[in-house]
Amino acid sequence: MATETSTWQHLAKAKLAAINGSIPEKWQLSSIPSIAEQQDVTGPFICKFLSTEEIEITETDAVDIVEKTSLGIWTAEEVTTAFCHRASLAHQLTNCLHETFFEAAIEDAKQLDAYYAQHKAPIGPLHGLPISLKDQFHVKGVETTMGYTGWINTFEGKKGTGKEKVFESEMVKELRSLGAVLYCKTAVPHSLMAGETVNNIIGYTTNPKNRNLTCGGSSGGEGALIALKGSPVGFGTDIGGSIRIPAAFNGLFGLRPSAGRMPYEGMANSMDGQNSVLSVVGPLSHSVASLRLMVKSLLSQQPWLHDPLCNELPWRQDQETQTLDLISSSKLSFGILKHDGAVTPHPPVQRALDMVVDTLQKLGHEVIEWHPPSHKRGFDIITSSWTYDGGTDIHNALGLSGEPMVSQISGMYRKRREEASASKISANNIAKREYQKEYMEYWNSTARSTSTGRPVDAIIAPLAPFAAARPDRYKYYGYSNIYNTLDYTSCVIPVTNVDKKVDMVNKSFKPVSEQDRDIQEDYDPELYHGAHVAVQLVGRRLQEEKVLALSEYVGGAIAESKDTRSSHL
Amino acid sequence: MATETSTWQHLAKAKLAAINGSIPEKWQLSSIPSIAEQQDVTGPFICKFLSTEEIEITETDAVDIVEKTSLGIWTAEEVTTAFCHRASLAHQLTNCLHETFFEAAIEDAKQLDAYYAQHKAPIGPLHGLPISLKDQFHVKGVETTMGYTGWINTFEGKKGTGKEKVFESEMVKELRSLGAVLYCKTAVPHSLMAGETVNNIIGYTTNPKNRNLTCGGSSGGEGALIALKGSPVGFGTDIGGSIRIPAAFNGLFGLRPSAGRMPYEGMANSMDGQNSVLSVVGPLSHSVASLRLMVKSLLSQQPWLHDPLCNELPWRQDQETQTLDLISSSKLSFGILKHDGAVTPHPPVQRALDMVVDTLQKLGHEVIEWHPPSHKRGFDIITSSWTYDGGTDIHNALGLSGEPMVSQISGMYRKRREEASASKISANNIAKREYQKEYMEYWNSTARSTSTGRPVDAIIAPLAPFAAARPDRYKYYGYSNIYNTLDYTSCVIPVTNVDKKVDMVNKSFKPVSEQDRDIQEDYDPELYHGAHVAVQLVGRRLQEEKVLALSEYVGGAIAESKDTRSSHL
Repeated sequence: MATETSTWQHLAKAKLAAINGSIPEKWQLSSIPSIAEQQDVTGPFICKFLSTEEIEITETDAVDIVEKTSLGIWTAEEVTTAFCHRASLAHQLTNCLHETFFEAAIEDAKQLDAYYAQHKAPIGPLHGLPISLKDQFHVKGVETTMGYTGWINTFEGKKGTGKEKVFESEMVKELRSLGAVLYCKTAVPHSLMAGETVNNIIGYTTNPKNRNLTCGGSSGGEGALIALKGSPVGFGTDIGGSIRIPAAFNGLFGLRPSAGRMPYEGMANSMDGQNSVLSVVGPLSHSVASLRLMVKSLLSQQPWLHDPLCNELPWRQDQETQTLDLISSSKLSFGILKHDGAVTPHPPVQRALDMVVDTLQKLGHEVIEWHPPSHKRGFDIITSSWTYDGGTDIHNALGLSGEPMVSQISGMYRKRREEASASKISANNIAKREYQKEYMEYWNSTARSTSTGRPVDAIIAPLAPFAAARPDRYKYYGYSNIYNTLDYTSCVIPVTNVDKKVDMVNKSFKPVSEQDRDIQEDYDPELYHGAHVAVQLVGRRLQEEKVLALSEYVGGAIAESKDTRSSHL
Repeated sequence: MATETSTWQHLAKAKLAAINGSIPEKWQLSSIPSIAEQQDVTGPFICKFLSTEEIEITETDAVDIVEKTSLGIWTAEEVTTAFCHRASLAHQLTNCLHETFFEAAIEDAKQLDAYYAQHKAPIGPLHGLPISLKDQFHVKGVETTMGYTGWINTFEGKKGTGKEKVFESEMVKELRSLGAVLYCKTAVPHSLMAGETVNNIIGYTTNPKNRNLTCGGSSGGEGALIALKGSPVGFGTDIGGSIRIPAAFNGLFGLRPSAGRMPYEGMANSMDGQNSVLSVVGPLSHSVASLRLMVKSLLSQQPWLHDPLCNELPWRQDQETQTLDLISSSKLSFGILKHDGAVTPHPPVQRALDMVVDTLQKLGHEVIEWHPPSHKRGFDIITSSWTYDGGTDIHNALGLSGEPMVSQISGMYRKRREEASASKISANNIAKREYQKEYMEYWNSTARSTSTGRPVDAIIAPLAPFAAARPDRYKYYGYSNIYNTLDYTSCVIPVTNVDKKVDMVNKSFKPVSEQDRDIQEDYDPELYHGAHVAVQLVGRRLQEEKVLALSEYVGGAIAESKDTRSSHL
């Protein structure tokens, strides 16, 4: 426990100063516009502070960056420097970083350039690609606070472990050996158990498209940074939506792989060892191609030889090819989840769902209504798993410095509860398995409702009932966490933006509960205007190749239909 | 709780009478020889009671049976009838069955024959093959007691569930659709947590090769039945050795797949919902080819569409082919575990290990000593997971009827303990992951010790410190349960039999502990004479194809070297 009440404030203040001070002076903005002055800081706004070359590099997709660095068209150093600069701006505008290590990154980039000069070939499939990491990854030279002031100057809250600033997470080593350049770690809510990003060190991370709203969480720093193109691709984690929420709220694609596909080994975590519902690691980016590049490259490292929870499942080209064949040669069939029975999506989310259905149907595909086993059951199972320890882990972490809990997690964790017993945990594990079994048999049963004779190829569902939550009003995780309970592969697809002229308040809305009314009342067209709206495309367990291929197709079709529509205007 | 103290005895007596009474009168033996009269009831002894045709069928390997039924050379009915007869004899000699349903089986066989007559083709890859099942599988028409008297006339201890004698486990459905014929369920120790097979219904199941010894457990009825060729192939489960122990003690091959490979869905279990170390289901048989037939056939049913814990991992022909290429074209490299640091293997087990090493080296392969991270750590992790609930589940099951606990599980479960808390379970899960990580990195590091430049291809290790345990003296599970902790694929390979003239008591033995001395003192050449001795061949997680291919090769080489040796005599 803290010996003086002011310890955590001192720690937080010094750490914040160190973070902000790590931004090179030449890249420091002389003034930051207020939200009222500049609600949207993406695109044209942030580009004002960059050179033409920097803009060209940072507006390039990860796949194309690697192509250029691999052909020697761009050096790793110039690419890295451009992203370090843009990330510095992004941070000043949204508070999205916890750690920067630009000098080390540029040094790494120079070594890659030297390698290239000598071998006339890239070192690996990610040669010279800057990649941002959520502040759960351990990277040498910097620390991991995960937003806890009590973790400052420690290794996961412990001192003298010998791992401080030296130890690297498994995936970090793999990314390095693939040729990636690591240069920053991004903001999270302390404990990771929130759909917003806020902690006592960095404060609140805002949504760059609409700074009145949250960037999402818990991989919120990733969402804000990548939205501002301060990173071409980054990695977050997801135990209830933490990759998909920031992806959705920032107009990005984000993949939640099933547990056991990507290496989580050696990362910091909350409530580590809770293994009823595992947190998973996955990428966020502007394109599905970038996500695929990440998954495929990492699997080439055989992570199952270094992570005991990883399955020996290399990239399955056959699964991707089969999906592409299906797309090109026959009708696809989707299930559409319009309402989960608990909370009604806001008008812009409903419009996004309609847009997707419309697009798919126009392309000749089939969309059937999805009426699965009660989502409330799945919700209760996962929230139970999040509170097995009655708050012990989180209270211990906060107790290291005596810092207060952020309000965003207090609903679940403020009050310490008795720890669950072994029998109670077992009962929840059984409930989970039974629920998963019923859900998969429901999925199987759709073969009788489709015209393809196959069960639906994927589900289209809201990711959240709102486009992006208002600060401190993220009140319902059911749309995202249901697929953590089920351990299904899910990819967020950006669809549209809130338009206050189109997305009116639904006057005829009939709430199914107090909660439903409460959440619907948070919708305010004026406040939400411009915010990103997304859906998720969900496949079965361990179908990453299929889900990526379908998401690329659907995402592309939606983008195209929007282009067509604009050209009609 | 029981309302009268005699309830469980009445239940047990009636159930035993029903089991024994289910053996058709024509197959009942007029007298059963005492152990002193007839220690070994395998081979020539049991064959005395069978016709030439029945002997021919039941002495045939599962793969060859299916070939014959698929070509219409044998009918499913004659095959099924022969195995029903031989299983009836096996039961009378060793107490190996909990349920028989011969009439239903023969009816099923007739339907398969009718299908064949109509289509001139088998219904599936297991057409007409009788398969025995451990008494955890639910099969319509009969009950599942798992050895608990309190489960008699219930569904897993509950009444009025509507599932009684109707519900079937997922794998049962899959086996049926593959063309298999189900005809009996085999004995287990109540709770399944023992390396012997004993319960208050059936009594003690003996080892058919040497009835002074145990047939092993917990899939002990399978071991005894298959050893007596009352079944060509059967399924057991394994959370600490329960497939491999009966395989080893009965001269069989037995595969422990990694968790998530084969469908466990809908089976009865002990301490269900404990998910730190999962029980897995796998086959036992006289040949590796039969095991492969089971795994490959079941995977063709896509169990991942019906079992939420199954991974989408079809049979990987490429992994098998790569392994076969390695065998035929280059040197293999094995790690040999001679001693786990805790308990010294008995002389016959040491001789078996030497035989395997010798055989492999003569074939030009390499064997290096295996010095992994402390096995004691792995042992403590798994035994902790077995007692999370402090005995609640087992005491509840015994309490249903008031029956006493068998002595074989009393060391761990007699005394009820406080249930583990969520934090304690999490800590054990972390300890497990860290241990697995260290172990895999040790495995990786052997690339520096082999001449192939690869890490070892597999580990050769004892399965138990003894050839087969003496009744009530199964004192150490460390050699088998370490691979449950690690979740490695393991296959038992029969090697030799105890020879009292060769396997002398080791006079120069120096115990490393009291436990070590105690176990070594149980060795008695006279008593153990003739007992089967096996080793296990261990691969990494989810390497079933590779482990089967290597086990077939190594098992074949050992058999051949024994034949050569005999011919030299």
